[in-house]
Amino acid sequence: RLYFQIPQFIRLLLTIFASMIVFGYIIHLIEPNEFKTVFDGVWWAFITGSTIGYGDYVPHTTIGRLLGISLILLGGGVLTFYMVTFAKTTISRKDAYEKGDV
Amino acid sequence: RLYFQIPQFIRLLLTIFASMIVFGYIIHLIEPNEFKTVFDGVWWAFITGSTIGYGDYVPHTTIGRLLGISLILLGGGVLTFYMVTFAKTTISRKDAYEKGDV
Amino acid sequence: RLYFQIPQFIRLLLTIFASMIVFGYIIHLIEPNEFKTVFDGVWWAFITGSTIGYGDYVPHTTIGRLLGISLILLGGGVLTFYMVTFAKTTISRKDAYEKGDV
Amino acid sequence: RLYFQIPQFIRLLLTIFASMIVFGYIIHLIEPNEFKTVFDGVWWAFITGSTIGYGDYVPHTTIGRLLGISLILLGGGVLTFYMVTFAKTTISRKDAYEKGDV
Ligand SMILES: [K+]
Ligand SMILES: [K+]
Repeated sequence: RLYFQIPQFIRLLLTIFASMIVFGYIIHLIEPNEFKTVFDGVWWAFITGSTIGYGDYVPHTTIGRLLGISLILLGGGVLTFYMVTFAKTTISRKDAYEKGDV
Repeated sequence: RLYFQIPQFIRLLLTIFASMIVFGYIIHLIEPNEFKTVFDGVWWAFITGSTIGYGDYVPHTTIGRLLGISLILLGGGVLTFYMVTFAKTTISRKDAYEKGDV
Repeated sequence: RLYFQIPQFIRLLLTIFASMIVFGYIIHLIEPNEFKTVFDGVWWAFITGSTIGYGDYVPHTTIGRLLGISLILLGGGVLTFYMVTFAKTTISRKDAYEKGDV
Repeated sequence: RLYFQIPQFIRLLLTIFASMIVFGYIIHLIEPNEFKTVFDGVWWAFITGSTIGYGDYVPHTTIGRLLGISLILLGGGVLTFYMVTFAKTTISRKDAYEKGDV
């Protein structure tokens, strides 16, 4: 089972990174004054998609905000899902280890 | 099954947009100095309902804050539910595709 | 079933309000300069417990921050649980209605 | 069952505190100007890992931000999982008590 699950986990991670890079790149194009580098945009996409929302980078234009809403509706859940899945997997593996199943 | 699930998903999206527009419109009426346009209010409702909370727009009056608490208690869960549902559906569909079920 | 579920939902809401008022009152006592009124504290407790975190009110002392960490560890999950439960109940009731079960 | 579950809960809490202290200590080393004390870093790690994100402490360097992204991907889910687990356990125990099971 491990053989198939690990690539799935890596695919999920790659999907997250690819999505955040795409959103970060687009916001950098839309609001280059607020998001001076592509990495500023990627950082914003991660902080927004994970629903942390520091507020250090915030879109101010209507188009930028619509991109932000798209990020919430398309990408936000993926990161939330990843976080819960990761936690559940870690804890159940730890339990399995302690029970002697692994 | 797809025939019934797609309209359900669109209804969920429409419910979210309708709720955020209502909350955004009311906060614009309550605190027009902080939320200068209706879209400022809608943006605030999305950022609050998704629990991102940038802090770029925050209600300062007691009535405005009570509306914010109502938004958390009424709308917050709907967006959270949407995000997790969306992620789960995306991932399980992807898995089904790879297994050859779709 | 409705007869027992509605009081349970109200109890959950009362537990949330009671917890947030207690945390809000304590932070007002610990940092009266930052949290000038009890309602400022209650607002902070709701915004923190729901993991929105606007940053308009933030504890600056070590004791205040330890209270904030306690709020995360004790109260945060209750609000998250409420939000997801509320959304699930709303949506499943809506589905039941449309299927003709209610 | 209680005999085994309570230590598990304490282990989960200890894992959270240990992780947050490690992340807090590293960010203090990477950005000592922003995170002046180790406790500033630990406070940031808790506020970030719980996805509250006040924005009172934010990493500004590329390395610091990569640590933040690691914290989201490694630690964020553990805290989210803890919060939901805690809420579910509290509520189901309360229900069991009211049903007379405990
Ligand atoms: K947040
Ligand atoms: K925030």
